[in-house]
Amino acid sequence: MKILITGGAGFLGQRLARRLLAEYPGASTTLVLVDCVATGAFAGEPRVQAVECDISDRAALARLVTPDTAVVYHLAAIVSGQAEAEFDLGRRINLAATETLLELCRGLPAPPKFVFASSMAVFGGAPADAITEQTAVYPQSSYGTQKAIGELLVNDYSRRGFVDGRAVRLPTIAVRAGKPNRAASSFVSGIMREPLHGQPAVCPVGREVLVAISSPQAVVENLVHAHRVPAAALGTNRTLILPGLSVTIGEMIDTLARVAGADVAARIRFERDEAVERIVLTWPARLDASRARSLGFQVDADFESILRSFQREAGI
Amino acid sequence: MKILITGGAGFLGQRLARRLLAEYPGASTTLVLVDCVATGAFAGEPRVQAVECDISDRAALARLVTPDTAVVYHLAAIVSGQAEAEFDLGRRINLAATETLLELCRGLPAPPKFVFASSMAVFGGAPADAITEQTAVYPQSSYGTQKAIGELLVNDYSRRGFVDGRAVRLPTIAVRAGKPNRAASSFVSGIMREPLHGQPAVCPVGREVLVAISSPQAVVENLVHAHRVPAAALGTNRTLILPGLSVTIGEMIDTLARVAGADVAARIRFERDEAVERIVLTWPARLDASRARSLGFQVDADFESILRSFQREAGI
Repeated sequence: MKILITGGAGFLGQRLARRLLAEYPGASTTLVLVDCVATGAFAGEPRVQAVECDISDRAALARLVTPDTAVVYHLAAIVSGQAEAEFDLGRRINLAATETLLELCRGLPAPPKFVFASSMAVFGGAPADAITEQTAVYPQSSYGTQKAIGELLVNDYSRRGFVDGRAVRLPTIAVRAGKPNRAASSFVSGIMREPLHGQPAVCPVGREVLVAISSPQAVVENLVHAHRVPAAALGTNRTLILPGLSVTIGEMIDTLARVAGADVAARIRFERDEAVERIVLTWPARLDASRARSLGFQVDADFESILRSFQREAGI
Repeated sequence: MKILITGGAGFLGQRLARRLLAEYPGASTTLVLVDCVATGAFAGEPRVQAVECDISDRAALARLVTPDTAVVYHLAAIVSGQAEAEFDLGRRINLAATETLLELCRGLPAPPKFVFASSMAVFGGAPADAITEQTAVYPQSSYGTQKAIGELLVNDYSRRGFVDGRAVRLPTIAVRAGKPNRAASSFVSGIMREPLHGQPAVCPVGREVLVAISSPQAVVENLVHAHRVPAAALGTNRTLILPGLSVTIGEMIDTLARVAGADVAARIRFERDEAVERIVLTWPARLDASRARSLGFQVDADFESILRSFQREAGI
């Protein structure tokens, strides 16, 4: 079984790859990690091929989507903040490349499982009630627009039998290791990660702001689960809201103070950033993920356990 | 003021052009009617330029989207039945050309009004309640998918200030003059038009089927209105459900018998067509168009007046 992961060198892609290698220990499962920079993280692992590829280059991508491709994880994206700042780049990667990838999958002898990482950014207008799969999308960013279009394509390509698609709307992932990125939500991890590493952090929104988050572990488990849910259980609607934990920024900071000490939490400084607020405050913070839950997708227990597992992994 | 109409040689495009010429009688308003076949219907009218153009040909389209373009009506589409049968053609015209047209508009010195003809086919799953602009799209055809994507693009391009967009979801237009087309809804006009012209007609769905329709006159008035509604009144959601009259096929046929005679209505034969049913029965038949109504869009009074105005125009 060949599994292709776009964005395979990224934070999520690498974690997913490791998890899939463990899940399928046999030599017959191979992974191709496609990204704009090849990752060296799997050097010496014969079952992993890391490929540097501009996924908007159709010919290059076509060489990777070979007839034995059974599963595609399409994680690659220009994140929200960057897609807003660089519209053409966002169009090229988030829109055109997604369509190209689906077209290449359509050409395969058997329709592959196609797991598309979508986002709560398809919603907007700060919905007051918990959003469901019956809530109209209303993206307030080009990133959210492009993800909503990807969902529609995945549904149509699935309906036509070209792929066996699963578009999963990921909550904000926190706490992420590594450096800040250009996602508007990057600060949600940053305000925990940086203070734990002894560094100052800026919080661009108020304590009262509610966010729906998921730990990297839960998201990766849910991504693995996504390719295994039977098509019949999904039916014709291939778009799923993944569960997320609703927590305020204030609760996160209080948990940090409790777990790591008030001096650590004191490294956070509040400085409103209207550009970030304009995007983040329109995202839904209350999710009705009952369909995903009934299909076996997971949710984190509470924020403290998320924070402690980040500390454990980071060795802090 | 230059007004560009794609699909300008079509049934709706020609009617819209005539209406706009009457609305703006001055010499300064010019129309460019773009279609895969140039219409000769406006020969001798100096204010109309009819152009044959494959709108998926970017270079050809670019020559028409000139800096003086103030309004674009994007009506051209591969209709539902054909887009389902010829997927690549639908993608090329309904998806790629729509994006190209928006991109060309983005390059204009001032953002043009951009009226996009969308469709109730963005909905699916035979919604029981009246659909609103807060109802999630759920297209069950590639045509509906492509229209839903067009709406998302129009919203994003409007949000970014590239165009001043208005995506209007048209109900089924009936009674259309002319020949049947490959829209799955073509029969809704056919079962009235053909009998009135002394010809037999086949009805592929049962009498009980409810449809939401709009007369050509009402749709054209609403399209004209669409480019004039102030942007501020529309706000950030540029997608509008246009009003439609909810009527059953049986009521339409009874009206035909009453207005034109039982012998005329007897020319309709029922013969179920599952391919048509599969598409048409998932479309919403009850529309909550209260936003459009409050913005001044029109609705037909009843089916009898729709039928009588078709007869009047056809001289029957």
